[in-house]
Amino acid sequence: MSTEAPQQIKLPPLRFSRKRNWASDQAIGFLMEQSVGNSNVISLAAGLVDQQSLPVEETRNALNELLSDDCLARKMLQYGTTAGYEMLRDQILVLLANLEGCAVDQLGIGRDQVVVTTGSQQFLSLVGEVLLDPGDICLVAAPTYFVFLSVLAGLGATAITIETDSDGMRTDALETQLQQLETDGLLDRVKLIYAVSYYENPSGISLSEERRPELVEIARRWSKTNRILILEDAAYRELRYDGPQLPSVWSFDADCESVILTQTFSKSFSPGLRVGYGIVPRDLIDPIFDRKSNDDFGSANFNQHLIASVMQSGLYESHVEFVRDSYRKKRDCMLQAADRYFTGLDGVTWVHPHGGLYVWMSLPETIETGFSSELFKTATQTEQVMYVPGELFYTDDSCRLRNQMRLSFGVQTLEGINEGMKRLANAVASIL
Amino acid sequence: MSTEAPQQIKLPPLRFSRKRNWASDQAIGFLMEQSVGNSNVISLAAGLVDQQSLPVEETRNALNELLSDDCLARKMLQYGTTAGYEMLRDQILVLLANLEGCAVDQLGIGRDQVVVTTGSQQFLSLVGEVLLDPGDICLVAAPTYFVFLSVLAGLGATAITIETDSDGMRTDALETQLQQLETDGLLDRVKLIYAVSYYENPSGISLSEERRPELVEIARRWSKTNRILILEDAAYRELRYDGPQLPSVWSFDADCESVILTQTFSKSFSPGLRVGYGIVPRDLIDPIFDRKSNDDFGSANFNQHLIASVMQSGLYESHVEFVRDSYRKKRDCMLQAADRYFTGLDGVTWVHPHGGLYVWMSLPETIETGFSSELFKTATQTEQVMYVPGELFYTDDSCRLRNQMRLSFGVQTLEGINEGMKRLANAVASIL
Repeated sequence: MSTEAPQQIKLPPLRFSRKRNWASDQAIGFLMEQSVGNSNVISLAAGLVDQQSLPVEETRNALNELLSDDCLARKMLQYGTTAGYEMLRDQILVLLANLEGCAVDQLGIGRDQVVVTTGSQQFLSLVGEVLLDPGDICLVAAPTYFVFLSVLAGLGATAITIETDSDGMRTDALETQLQQLETDGLLDRVKLIYAVSYYENPSGISLSEERRPELVEIARRWSKTNRILILEDAAYRELRYDGPQLPSVWSFDADCESVILTQTFSKSFSPGLRVGYGIVPRDLIDPIFDRKSNDDFGSANFNQHLIASVMQSGLYESHVEFVRDSYRKKRDCMLQAADRYFTGLDGVTWVHPHGGLYVWMSLPETIETGFSSELFKTATQTEQVMYVPGELFYTDDSCRLRNQMRLSFGVQTLEGINEGMKRLANAVASIL
Repeated sequence: MSTEAPQQIKLPPLRFSRKRNWASDQAIGFLMEQSVGNSNVISLAAGLVDQQSLPVEETRNALNELLSDDCLARKMLQYGTTAGYEMLRDQILVLLANLEGCAVDQLGIGRDQVVVTTGSQQFLSLVGEVLLDPGDICLVAAPTYFVFLSVLAGLGATAITIETDSDGMRTDALETQLQQLETDGLLDRVKLIYAVSYYENPSGISLSEERRPELVEIARRWSKTNRILILEDAAYRELRYDGPQLPSVWSFDADCESVILTQTFSKSFSPGLRVGYGIVPRDLIDPIFDRKSNDDFGSANFNQHLIASVMQSGLYESHVEFVRDSYRKKRDCMLQAADRYFTGLDGVTWVHPHGGLYVWMSLPETIETGFSSELFKTATQTEQVMYVPGELFYTDDSCRLRNQMRLSFGVQTLEGINEGMKRLANAVASIL
């Protein structure tokens, strides 16, 4: 460290961008810290995936093979392209066709419409960046994925909530809201409808099969001066334990003009590799790529080769099957524990999810669950169990419910889930 | 693919965000494509690194060891934290102390001021996002790194160029410009001074030792209503072949309030892993982390463990030594080829860089080098050699020179460099 310090002047504080000031406090950072530290607390909060079913053997085998070839190893260690490794993008098309139950050439898209990102989170952020100006409107379910709400806030965009029921976002409520926005002269500010279509984080609810084509039809019909896009977040799609195998909302968009689809390998394979992807309408390709060029020139090429290799060899498919079995047991365990410990508690209800990582629990209306609530304090300090307060998943106060909790069965062992639910029931009982 | 297509309506075109519309065409995408395709063309354009000196053996050994431990392997495959893997951040402090020639505790910063990103490019983008509003001003050298100019354009920020000479950005010209901006009532819009302090891309010039503390002193003294930060981009710092080992600009910022430093493992180790980092003043920590939380929750944890491991084992240091030797030979080869083939050509001059990946060549003023120039056409089509036109590295037309070329010795073999320079000299000779 050089010692010639310049003359000391008291400096004025930093002045940040408006975007910085719009960005709300990041609950995810807090939750991730919680999930790492505090080893006595059983976390039903963390959205991390199950540690035990991570693909250690698959990764070891694939890398052994890839790195044994000097030429290929060098290719992996070199820069890739901004859009992503071509072979991975081809494998993604195969996976997507598989999920939709069709052949690759029936998908109606090419490799150039697949963009590989640092998790699906980066894709969500890129879409927001290229589409949304401050004051632009995105319609969202209530409750919905809170990190996307935070992305919208950071852009100065307005999230307007649409009522949901056990079939997901209500299409009649969506129509009513669009009608209202048109009456208010705001229709041309509506750019996006954000839909977590499979096992929504936090509610565990999927958009029903009937509503999927309706959503596309509504987006198209209300695209009057301005095209309204649906951003379909299917992050949990491959974590299906039972219930119907639903086609994506995207699959009902015959011309691939109205729906943007994003999925990820974080839940089905490994979040530590940070590989997700989006499928974009043709006129979004350049904007997304240009933005990503400025942001990072492309996600880690090494990791993309690894995932392409496990997909090609069939290791991916068998691993996903294994992961599904593992999470199915965990979900069953959490639901059984809910029956066991919460059934006696008046006014406590919960959703039975067919997939994903979360059980969504509602308490009597008078029992608040927020960070500053009595319940949260009792749960985390006395009973040593952590959950995510449901109020984080609502964007505006008019519809925000304060008596809900998101309970994750991703991280804990079966014993941990059972013990965590027992502790949580104790905390709830002591407040009731 | 489902067949129930909704009724076809002719949809209006997409309306993008203002940011999207500000983003200029991405020359980097074009250049990367060029570097991948067209195998007959010798590319002296691509900023890729040398394929042959990539750390295949180091990566293989480190991963073999890391993945042989199931518990550690699972940790690598799980989510990390937004700020980055703690052990890597500690190793970065050790590396930085090493480069500054001091002990870690003399650096005057803690691990919490180190943020790991997807290459240093993502760090540059994050800094822009949290600091710059449309119309805010960033002072830059001319010529300078064109992808950062593109980041600034995408933010709607104004890049104002400061004259440079063979010692880098002229501090007297910087003073004059700040004085002018104050006179014009624009001083409070100046938020950043962007300085590529080592072997600037494209010019190969380093900021002189004398000017480094001056830059800090100027930034502090002109921080009147608003703190002016220096963003020091030291991406090429470890690629030093000869010449002085310069302390960073950052090292002269005694209170760590005025300089943001970014470096990367892309040039010294592997770009395919996409790991870079920034060192930030304390009051920038939260804004950067919040933004990165929204963007991707953190860069690939797997890759961070890999790099921490090679740093800890000493494999990193020896590899960087090897890489330096390899590039030194390539630089010498390019300079010798320049002497051999260009010496007879009137009015052609070039910089002798002490490090980095580029030789910056100037032609007589009447010879344009741009994408649509006669020279570019002759070089790429007749002679089959590719360079980057110098005009891309200037932000505004008032100072833009159109008779320069950036020649990279990173990717080609010694034979390729020699042959490429010969072809380029032929192209230039045929235009002269």
